[in-house]
Amino acid sequence: MNQIDLIYIQSIIGDKERVLYGENINEEYSHDELSGTESYPDVVVRVTSAEEISAIMKYAYDNNIPVTPRGAGTGLVGSSVAMEHGIMLETGLMNHVLELDEDNLTITVEPGVLLMDLAAYVEERDLFYPPDPGEKSATIGGNISTNAGGMRAVKYGVTRDYVRGLEVVLPNGTITTFGGKVVKNSTGYALKDLMVGSEGTLGIITKAVLKLLPLPQKAISLLIPFPSLEQAIRTVPLIIKSKSIPTAIEFMQREVIMDAEKYLGKKFPDNSADAYLLLKFDGNSVEEIEKSYERVAGICLEQGAIDILISDTEEREESIWKARGAFLEAIKGSTTYMDEVDVVVPRSSVNEMVEYIHNLHEKVDIRIKSFGHAGDGNLHAYILKDDLSNEEWELKMKAAMDNIYEKARELNGQVSGEHGIGYAKKSYLLESMDPVVVELMKGIKEAFDPKNILNPHKVFK
Amino acid sequence: MNQIDLIYIQSIIGDKERVLYGENINEEYSHDELSGTESYPDVVVRVTSAEEISAIMKYAYDNNIPVTPRGAGTGLVGSSVAMEHGIMLETGLMNHVLELDEDNLTITVEPGVLLMDLAAYVEERDLFYPPDPGEKSATIGGNISTNAGGMRAVKYGVTRDYVRGLEVVLPNGTITTFGGKVVKNSTGYALKDLMVGSEGTLGIITKAVLKLLPLPQKAISLLIPFPSLEQAIRTVPLIIKSKSIPTAIEFMQREVIMDAEKYLGKKFPDNSADAYLLLKFDGNSVEEIEKSYERVAGICLEQGAIDILISDTEEREESIWKARGAFLEAIKGSTTYMDEVDVVVPRSSVNEMVEYIHNLHEKVDIRIKSFGHAGDGNLHAYILKDDLSNEEWELKMKAAMDNIYEKARELNGQVSGEHGIGYAKKSYLLESMDPVVVELMKGIKEAFDPKNILNPHKVFK
Repeated sequence: MNQIDLIYIQSIIGDKERVLYGENINEEYSHDELSGTESYPDVVVRVTSAEEISAIMKYAYDNNIPVTPRGAGTGLVGSSVAMEHGIMLETGLMNHVLELDEDNLTITVEPGVLLMDLAAYVEERDLFYPPDPGEKSATIGGNISTNAGGMRAVKYGVTRDYVRGLEVVLPNGTITTFGGKVVKNSTGYALKDLMVGSEGTLGIITKAVLKLLPLPQKAISLLIPFPSLEQAIRTVPLIIKSKSIPTAIEFMQREVIMDAEKYLGKKFPDNSADAYLLLKFDGNSVEEIEKSYERVAGICLEQGAIDILISDTEEREESIWKARGAFLEAIKGSTTYMDEVDVVVPRSSVNEMVEYIHNLHEKVDIRIKSFGHAGDGNLHAYILKDDLSNEEWELKMKAAMDNIYEKARELNGQVSGEHGIGYAKKSYLLESMDPVVVELMKGIKEAFDPKNILNPHKVFK
Repeated sequence: MNQIDLIYIQSIIGDKERVLYGENINEEYSHDELSGTESYPDVVVRVTSAEEISAIMKYAYDNNIPVTPRGAGTGLVGSSVAMEHGIMLETGLMNHVLELDEDNLTITVEPGVLLMDLAAYVEERDLFYPPDPGEKSATIGGNISTNAGGMRAVKYGVTRDYVRGLEVVLPNGTITTFGGKVVKNSTGYALKDLMVGSEGTLGIITKAVLKLLPLPQKAISLLIPFPSLEQAIRTVPLIIKSKSIPTAIEFMQREVIMDAEKYLGKKFPDNSADAYLLLKFDGNSVEEIEKSYERVAGICLEQGAIDILISDTEEREESIWKARGAFLEAIKGSTTYMDEVDVVVPRSSVNEMVEYIHNLHEKVDIRIKSFGHAGDGNLHAYILKDDLSNEEWELKMKAAMDNIYEKARELNGQVSGEHGIGYAKKSYLLESMDPVVVELMKGIKEAFDPKNILNPHKVFK
């Protein structure tokens, strides 16, 4: 990019404070939440409308300038890092709720609205946006771009299931829409669904119509200590098979809980057992929920659970889930540096996958902590650098990852359940995926972005 | 196609009875459920495996022979009609359940399994496949290809939401898979979702992994007579906004009910009112369901409902829904010929759309009957030929359709909610869709099928 490009972009935007270049670009813009992937953009534009994005994309397209879209930068795989420099379009100022449509149970938002703000907005109005990834300060545009999952996927599904329609700026600057407020749609190819999870490589989301549900009246969580990880995990398929569908089924081990206690400076309700299941049930009446959880509590006790700790006040409920939400940050705080794995396996193989990760240190001498969504097969493993030298770290981290991804493949799993592929996991996608499928993805990318200017070097390319 | 092609195909298949040509091709293979789109294939192959399909596709690809996949031929828009003749691959013999995986709550089936057989198979085992289109003798492959919706979409969503993974033969004959048994997936572009609803233009589905739920223990339906259509439809948004989520919300008018009574030779529980809402509630306890439907019954009575007829025996339940399922056939039986419209509008606009269709005969003098899924905005209107001459029919039918699709567009609706576009609705898709979006679809088609040999002339091309 040269001075002329910068002047042109400045002329589109007007407001000088929204165009950052040179030393005005904060270091944060050079990486995401895990700083392994690093690269500075030439210019950061804090966009405020689809029209601005369109004008910039048109210019970038005509002049072959790479463009990287970015929300809050909370990703873990480098999707929002400007690998080829160029223009970064940051959507943080596009943070407005545009419409709440109570007749259609939809909310229309700009992409920069934060997940926590969206959740609070609808819950105040007795409505419910179910997707609930751990990172509440992510933008909704980012959540859509990675098809974020979260803890409530067992009962409610993932982000994709709540996206009805999208306004998108295509790589050549054209503004168009996919889907709409309609509940059913069999009109042509599912471009809305293709956009979801495409990690900013096919178009830039400028507006999203999201589906809402009525807010469940009541939620109760059960924290269930088990004598061993194996017993905890082995109980999960039995819960899935029972007639009760919990909202969430998480597993965690004592050491992660203790990290979270330290990080938050607060005690968890219990940290005496080796392993825990954390279950949530929601519904519209206490009786209905009680009936569900009593059945599940019975199953857990039969499988050797030590106790059933019921959290039936809002306070306790919040404290448990706050601790759960802090796991990533807590683990991060317990080491010098880390990298993550986000594999997903069929639910019936969670046990085998978790055991494998748990025992991997016997094969690769490196500290690994894991927790995750036992109920949907999506496991998060964090590989910790501690006081390893950079060389040792690179070697051992790679060995650990290679092993985990290979095991996931063996179990018919996938590389990413919810974090996406971005830049950091590209090689693992390419290793695990049928090359024919990769070719189809390249063809689709070509149809949307023939010049490959939008978020280059991501996902598979 | 020439004699050599035929000999080669015969050599792949072996069994002579599964390769039909010339006079052995039954007339049924020249059209689907609505015979407006007509064309004979040169050869019909009753395939039994992905390997057979792959071998035939490879040959077709190398020799530029058009191929049309077909399930049970119950479509309404000509998707499974061989517009350019060539090879028809009929999947009716691929009707096996391959695996029921109770740990993962999935079932793996061949594409030719009929919806009714799938439903019966899982329900016998206390499991539940929620998608429930009116046409129970459609194949599951067909359902996936049109992203079929059905009556339970209000609570449970559509076919897409229950497809976890697909085995697909690509146009060049390669066999590959999209997705799998995993619950979450953020690994590359959503090709599984792209296949769903692509009407056999991107690949041929040879295996599907479907998500199941535990079978709800109990279902109760309410048949609610209203003095007018307007009052019935106006009640729907109030139901949606209440905390109760019915499984289904259908609307129907007396004249359609009377057609169904005549067709089935059985009385409907009530036919005295002008218009009806038919609601279904399901759950795991009578009390839970009662609480839901009492709230909704109260809303309906406040809005002027004449009565609330509760069907709480399995017999009554079946008789009502059997009548509902027979509407299409009943209307078909009441006229000489007909064509259909399957628009979907935002739920808040159902009232306006239904009223518009109801009064359209004042503008275009032709008989139109409608019913549909009031709860999800998907309306079916049937335009009847009766004793019109072919010329009058063409003119008036087209005028009626043009008006309905224009109105749907005005209400931010889409051309098809669940039947698909096929051949018959292509012009309406092209009229209503942003040309930029059509270009993207063409690009995707090109990536999958550069020679355009798979199901040509369908959807948009």
